[in-house]
Amino acid sequence: MRSPVREIFKKVDLASIYSFAGGYPDAATFPIDDIRRISAQVLEKYGAKALQYGATQGVPELREVIARRYGVPVENVQITTSSQQGIDVCTRVFVNPGDVVLTTAPTYLGALQSFKSYRADIRTLEEVRSMLTPATVTARGLVNGKGPDARIKFCYVIPDFQNPSGETMTLEERQKLVAMAREHDFLIIEDSPYRELRYSGDPVPTLCSLAPERTLHLGSFSKIFAPGFRLGWMIGPVELLDRVYVCKQSLDLCPPILDQYMAAEFMGSGALDANLRKSIALYRTKRDRMLSLLERYMPEGVSWTHPEGGLFLFLTLPEEIDTVALYDRALSAGVAYVAGSFFYPDGSHRNTMRLNFSFLDASRMEAGVQLLAKVIKNSALTQ
Amino acid sequence: MRSPVREIFKKVDLASIYSFAGGYPDAATFPIDDIRRISAQVLEKYGAKALQYGATQGVPELREVIARRYGVPVENVQITTSSQQGIDVCTRVFVNPGDVVLTTAPTYLGALQSFKSYRADIRTLEEVRSMLTPATVTARGLVNGKGPDARIKFCYVIPDFQNPSGETMTLEERQKLVAMAREHDFLIIEDSPYRELRYSGDPVPTLCSLAPERTLHLGSFSKIFAPGFRLGWMIGPVELLDRVYVCKQSLDLCPPILDQYMAAEFMGSGALDANLRKSIALYRTKRDRMLSLLERYMPEGVSWTHPEGGLFLFLTLPEEIDTVALYDRALSAGVAYVAGSFFYPDGSHRNTMRLNFSFLDASRMEAGVQLLAKVIKNSALTQ
Repeated sequence: MRSPVREIFKKVDLASIYSFAGGYPDAATFPIDDIRRISAQVLEKYGAKALQYGATQGVPELREVIARRYGVPVENVQITTSSQQGIDVCTRVFVNPGDVVLTTAPTYLGALQSFKSYRADIRTLEEVRSMLTPATVTARGLVNGKGPDARIKFCYVIPDFQNPSGETMTLEERQKLVAMAREHDFLIIEDSPYRELRYSGDPVPTLCSLAPERTLHLGSFSKIFAPGFRLGWMIGPVELLDRVYVCKQSLDLCPPILDQYMAAEFMGSGALDANLRKSIALYRTKRDRMLSLLERYMPEGVSWTHPEGGLFLFLTLPEEIDTVALYDRALSAGVAYVAGSFFYPDGSHRNTMRLNFSFLDASRMEAGVQLLAKVIKNSALTQ
Repeated sequence: MRSPVREIFKKVDLASIYSFAGGYPDAATFPIDDIRRISAQVLEKYGAKALQYGATQGVPELREVIARRYGVPVENVQITTSSQQGIDVCTRVFVNPGDVVLTTAPTYLGALQSFKSYRADIRTLEEVRSMLTPATVTARGLVNGKGPDARIKFCYVIPDFQNPSGETMTLEERQKLVAMAREHDFLIIEDSPYRELRYSGDPVPTLCSLAPERTLHLGSFSKIFAPGFRLGWMIGPVELLDRVYVCKQSLDLCPPILDQYMAAEFMGSGALDANLRKSIALYRTKRDRMLSLLERYMPEGVSWTHPEGGLFLFLTLPEEIDTVALYDRALSAGVAYVAGSFFYPDGSHRNTMRLNFSFLDASRMEAGVQLLAKVIKNSALTQ
């Protein structure tokens, strides 16, 4: 399965259109001066060590600052070469063809790609609440087989500011998921690339704090440092990380070393927190602006989510509008989005779309929303 | 399957022993001044672009310098996050459980790990010459099934200065392999991390130049730039690279961006060639020294290969010496190697070992070989 998002970027020069399509951070948040300084510092401090092969688990310095920041022992931290790799390696290690993977619908496209590539039996939870009763699960035949092929291997969720919906699971929902995972003995993959980007509301405890014995928590430097480094981490029980570790040996031996030392220096020195404060302020303004632009320009019958953080919100259009069919017209008009149906394993919900609000600057954002609203209005007229 | 090499480095502080075990380049070959300069240059030149997400195929600048260097069109170049990833992704894309993968015996351990992890049916070619007749292949039942499960998907070889043997395939052997691959319609994975490190003899044409229509050639920056960057490349037919590309989307989206720009600058500016000349001179001296030390210290009954390049040579000890059993004693004595049987899919050849000659400096190399020779002599006495 190809990523429709990545395919868009093969064909289109981002600078020439108003793009709400990617999950790109605003380049203004990249700490380029810090990076220049840190790069020189790290080469000075570590010399050849920063350029040699390193441990498969990641360099100790980086594992230690992550362990400190998130309050876990260092042996519970594995560095990944991107949190996408974290998702992929979990699927490879824990899922055999035909095994059940639970996920919300919609969910992250890149996770669906991995699940499908390993021929997992993807079961979606159309409503978080209805899923969270053991009765529902049993009724759906997910656990009644008892054999290795009928078992749920893990439930994959993005609890904070979900990609694509922007929504956040409540504490109650998290507790129910944990109870269900314990009852039916499956793992939880908590994909958490946006958690540090909260613009309003109060933090909700992570799943890995609620169920440390069965949760693999995936973190990412892409939204708090820079995506170009392709660095993430995994926090979880030692016996699960050990299986990941063995697999990772044959994936790429170890994550990039110089990049890891730079990330360790960035996070450990406090530069990350300083930069994060600026990023949050910028993104809060952008989210608020996006919401008010949608309010101003979108025609009747269009609704959207109101995320408390992250990079995305999710639009629902009138039933009769097909955002997959509409896409080429939108692109010709000069505006890009990702059709929401790509985030549903069954390709349903063709009247939805994901909009990113982190990438475009304020003035282009307004022109983009205006254009998109026009494309939607015209589509409603012609359908 | 765990990597015995990586396991060694989990337990042992390299500085405290004489290690012939790893495949570590000599840190003296790392172009640290170039890297310092290039890192600043690249951040200046590309700014935020060097930190943002990038194309799954790799940044165009790096693909272009590789295409120019190896005389292929740019669309035939895919960047990988390490050439280990190249091996792993080829196996994932082309091999289903039970499919046949041909390889030489011995062969690269990290490749065996990948093949086993995807449950390939690994068939070894104990003698390159005997393998290279279609009759042998048919006799071994590799192609008589005709069904998709009985087919050879690819043959994996390291034709230049093989890991672990140090040996190089002759032109005739390469031509025979190509003829066989064409007759039986399988791919060739040409793993080529050491090709640029030739210390004597004449270069032999690559398999990808002999059979460009069916060869995926894997290159690596680990031995010509620095392993810490975890960057490699793949040269091959567009239709094969396209399948790799789709898979790589769900592996890690794209290779590290800043590192790619640095590698492009290093290779494109001529700094790589200047550094390579120095590395080759250094490693030639080391190889020659290693060979003369083995000549001087090894007891009778021990023989070894005479590589024309690369980082390794391969020792064969008297039949009765078990290098797996000997390993802990050697480590206690202060010297490390990798038992040769780990490079055989069936774990045979327990009287062999791989020795790396790139890592230790000249004086430590002599002490190490002396010590190793003593351990071997004592072992022969006690067995």
